[in-house]
Amino acid sequence: MQEKRPIVTLLTDYGTKEHFVGAMKGVLLEINPQVDIIDISHEIASHDILEGAFTLSCYHNYFPHHTIHIAVVDPGVGTRRRPIIVSTENYTYIAPDNGLLSFVYETEPISRVIHITAEHFFHKPVSRTFHGRDIFAPVAAWISKGIELVQFGEEITDYVKLSTPKVRIVDAKLVQGVVLHIDKFGNVVTNFTERNIPHAETDELLFEKFIVANREITEKKEAYEEGSPKEVFVILGSSGYYEIVTSRGSAAALLGVRRGSEVTVALK
Amino acid sequence: MQEKRPIVTLLTDYGTKEHFVGAMKGVLLEINPQVDIIDISHEIASHDILEGAFTLSCYHNYFPHHTIHIAVVDPGVGTRRRPIIVSTENYTYIAPDNGLLSFVYETEPISRVIHITAEHFFHKPVSRTFHGRDIFAPVAAWISKGIELVQFGEEITDYVKLSTPKVRIVDAKLVQGVVLHIDKFGNVVTNFTERNIPHAETDELLFEKFIVANREITEKKEAYEEGSPKEVFVILGSSGYYEIVTSRGSAAALLGVRRGSEVTVALK
Amino acid sequence: MQEKRPIVTLLTDYGTKEHFVGAMKGVLLEINPQVDIIDISHEIASHDILEGAFTLSCYHNYFPHHTIHIAVVDPGVGTRRRPIIVSTENYTYIAPDNGLLSFVYETEPISRVIHITAEHFFHKPVSRTFHGRDIFAPVAAWISKGIELVQFGEEITDYVKLSTPKVRIVDAKLVQGVVLHIDKFGNVVTNFTERNIPHAETDELLFEKFIVANREITEKKEAYEEGSPKEVFVILGSSGYYEIVTSRGSAAALLGVRRGSEVTVALK
Repeated sequence: MQEKRPIVTLLTDYGTKEHFVGAMKGVLLEINPQVDIIDISHEIASHDILEGAFTLSCYHNYFPHHTIHIAVVDPGVGTRRRPIIVSTENYTYIAPDNGLLSFVYETEPISRVIHITAEHFFHKPVSRTFHGRDIFAPVAAWISKGIELVQFGEEITDYVKLSTPKVRIVDAKLVQGVVLHIDKFGNVVTNFTERNIPHAETDELLFEKFIVANREITEKKEAYEEGSPKEVFVILGSSGYYEIVTSRGSAAALLGVRRGSEVTVALK
Repeated sequence: MQEKRPIVTLLTDYGTKEHFVGAMKGVLLEINPQVDIIDISHEIASHDILEGAFTLSCYHNYFPHHTIHIAVVDPGVGTRRRPIIVSTENYTYIAPDNGLLSFVYETEPISRVIHITAEHFFHKPVSRTFHGRDIFAPVAAWISKGIELVQFGEEITDYVKLSTPKVRIVDAKLVQGVVLHIDKFGNVVTNFTERNIPHAETDELLFEKFIVANREITEKKEAYEEGSPKEVFVILGSSGYYEIVTSRGSAAALLGVRRGSEVTVALK
Repeated sequence: MQEKRPIVTLLTDYGTKEHFVGAMKGVLLEINPQVDIIDISHEIASHDILEGAFTLSCYHNYFPHHTIHIAVVDPGVGTRRRPIIVSTENYTYIAPDNGLLSFVYETEPISRVIHITAEHFFHKPVSRTFHGRDIFAPVAAWISKGIELVQFGEEITDYVKLSTPKVRIVDAKLVQGVVLHIDKFGNVVTNFTERNIPHAETDELLFEKFIVANREITEKKEAYEEGSPKEVFVILGSSGYYEIVTSRGSAAALLGVRRGSEVTVALK
């Protein structure tokens, strides 16, 4: 049995046409050649912290314990925004302190948040524009080699939490939410979960209709292909959010909705 | 000498902007942290089974024996389409049973096809919309740890074979085919191979002309750069198919052809 | 402590929708399953040797010693352009001899350049259109297994050096350069470095203005977010080049400049 290689995942908005991701990987491997680097995505929309935060929330928990998750969507690089390490029972996260870990803060018990200041772990010279390479990658590599988190800086408690989109209860029969994400297939991911729209004992959903972009959607199905062509219906998606979808097509395009569009649900 | 790490390749239509690929990788590593995950492409056109099948046929045989190939283009996820394991002498394939392995069936002797039903190997809860994460990735990880294929379900023989585009012999001097693929460079990959258009002893090709989009192409060259600017010519491509190409440009754009366009070849 | 796995990086213009990268990875692993394959980018613009050369120059030095860097932007594949191995004190590069390593030649002391001719190391049959799979990948894999460079062919000295864009000194107060690259964020990377525009003792830059696309830019800042919205200013970028940028937006779009556009700098 081989020893396990430490796993470091990478989520960025650096794109895949550039050298940015390559330089980060080089720095990681230079410090710890044992590291197993796992690309998640480098196609987060430029500077879109909320999209990064949402995406992170959908994969981080599937990794083995001790995985180190690097996330870099960092419009404020080189300003006073802090680089941080966040530890939970299972994982270590390394990111700019700009709210990129907001979904993590909402769902995981946080053990510690550390403001990274120990410059001797940085890649020199430290640029003011590329902390992915100069701070986040080397700090991850040193953590993967067993350096204790206290070595990197002081604990803080005033880390930045963005307000993630919440469902608003209008009355006993009406809840209001938003489109959280449009995925690659054009599925419209809302911020409603089973906590907002409960199942009946019979496994039937207790909603009458979804209202979005002046359309009322009353059908609920279990799989994408159960709909007729161009029929728009509701499905409980794989990340726990209700989605508005159509078979083999883009519900977002059919409905003309975007991230942030309002969605209202009438409950039964 | 280190022990070999098991290799798992990933081909999907999940895109690289999403969490989907990351979640699959997490599940794979959670079960078997030794696995070496190799990204092939996640940019197969959404739901395009034939494009996925063609792409798979162009790389699978280059990998070392015992490689596990996961392929997920899966519009029917969550319906009655079956998840399957296909084994050949050299490889194991894990995919939905929707024809995605059709090129494999045509070229490789198939040892066994197993309908995956052993739910205790799945990632729980099993969604109806993301079997890449909940079925295909965990099954691949368990196979990589040495679980025998019989453990995953019953053997089947009625697996789905799509009819891949065939060359039609019109007469001794005329054969008809189609455009199989337009590649990233704009090269027009046809479904003609050396079996359809033989070489003479002199290594000269025995065709008079390719006819596509009302254009007659009579030139055959060996390398992309041998043509004059905007000259369109025929080349025997690296995957064994004849291609219609131009130097440093897109023959597909010059000719206005797409996948599925008819191609006729007049033989000598 | 585990033995280090040999690292092979991949930079190509093959795109991520195709089988090309997958086939290369298969060949690499077939010969040496221990190899750790690191994707840099496969999205270099088709046939754009200069973009590939620039990108390579921005990551290669961050990797650990003994890393093998494969770079394939290869419009002349299958013609008389030579496949080469270049060795420096720290790295081995494998590429077509078309100038793709020009930035490396300018900055690194070159130990040896070898014209690859030893066909017994190639993947057979060797196509005339896909040397990434048939020559570059297998040669890299054999090098990673310890085969000495002299085994692959004869040393050459007449390898191709493209003239990379140089800064021209017009007079003591005026220097002329070009836009070297537009990055994913729309930052305009010029070919001016600190050698061209020195700092004063006070760390203040000794330029009066950048002139590009009939706009004069006089502001210099340290971080992207220091500007007001739509303000265009100069920054010293993380790869050592001066960049013309704007906060959370595309300076390239605001200014209407492209790679190759002229940039003039008036010094103080």
